[in-house]
Amino acid sequence: MAGGLIEQLMEALQCLPGVGPKSAQRMTYYLLERDRQGALQLAEVLHAAATRIGHCQRCRTFTEAEICDICARPGRDATTLCIVETPADVQAIEQATDYKGVYFVLMGHLSPLDGIGPAEIGLDQLSKRLENQIVTEIILATSTTVEGEATAHYIADMVSGRDIKVSRIAHGVPMGGELEFVNRSTLLHAFKGRRQV
Amino acid sequence: MAGGLIEQLMEALQCLPGVGPKSAQRMTYYLLERDRQGALQLAEVLHAAATRIGHCQRCRTFTEAEICDICARPGRDATTLCIVETPADVQAIEQATDYKGVYFVLMGHLSPLDGIGPAEIGLDQLSKRLENQIVTEIILATSTTVEGEATAHYIADMVSGRDIKVSRIAHGVPMGGELEFVNRSTLLHAFKGRRQV
Repeated sequence: MAGGLIEQLMEALQCLPGVGPKSAQRMTYYLLERDRQGALQLAEVLHAAATRIGHCQRCRTFTEAEICDICARPGRDATTLCIVETPADVQAIEQATDYKGVYFVLMGHLSPLDGIGPAEIGLDQLSKRLENQIVTEIILATSTTVEGEATAHYIADMVSGRDIKVSRIAHGVPMGGELEFVNRSTLLHAFKGRRQV
Repeated sequence: MAGGLIEQLMEALQCLPGVGPKSAQRMTYYLLERDRQGALQLAEVLHAAATRIGHCQRCRTFTEAEICDICARPGRDATTLCIVETPADVQAIEQATDYKGVYFVLMGHLSPLDGIGPAEIGLDQLSKRLENQIVTEIILATSTTVEGEATAHYIADMVSGRDIKVSRIAHGVPMGGELEFVNRSTLLHAFKGRRQV
């Protein structure tokens, strides 16, 4: 077998999530045989991304600038704040909705057992922001997992003293879902949250 | 959403086989959140591999040196030649068998419709090698696909004038295979190739 570099590449590719030894071998030979240009391009972008991407000083999402695109855009309404767990959530909301406010990205959720408290998810920064800037509405869009719910409750409590409208995204039956296959807890939420038509 | 670099990384990761937009997004956020060191390492190795890995001048497999590890190792018997399609096949044979000869890697198989003829898979180089060096045995270990079979036949014909023992790896029922689930053509080969016990 060829020397060190090939094995090193197979090893290094396994830092990607979902890539084991077999896929890494396939990727290695594919790149060497058919896409060296792509490999060089990937190497360059990886290096740039790993060294230059930091967090937005306002909303904590990933960005290469000081302030991210969305926070910097003049058309966005900075008095409405949507609180999400990850940058991927921001992307999902941007693609699915016409939301025109800005975001605050926790980069995680409360998880005391893992040592992740309010400070780790930037709630002190959020608190300071509510002091210094006018925010009239907060949308809690954390996940509907136990940790996501707990985080949403914690933030709702934290904000409760202020004159801010706080809402939680709706829980219920997903679109295209058949009732018989929906789990109990979702169905319970769907019933509790029913709205007059 | 964060600016250009993140999208560039998601795009660049899709040069990997089996990676679509969703996996690329997952990989991007994973690397940025949890493994920047791994990303830097991968960038470095990718660059080195794409620029420095070439083909072994004797067997055509991938190597960063002029002659690959196996061809250069003194303990290997250079008079026995195992002919395979890809470097991955070399690795598989090395791991599964105690073969002590050397390899010749076609880097493909004959496929006239795609413009891949004898020259493209290095058969002129193989021919020269048979002229200049002593080779007493050739093992045809191309795939058992139609193209692999055709390639094996072509090489067998090419070599037939010389005093070289040529063999083809056995076709038959794979180990652990249940007869009723084995396809017809395999079963036919297994019957034809039966050996006295």
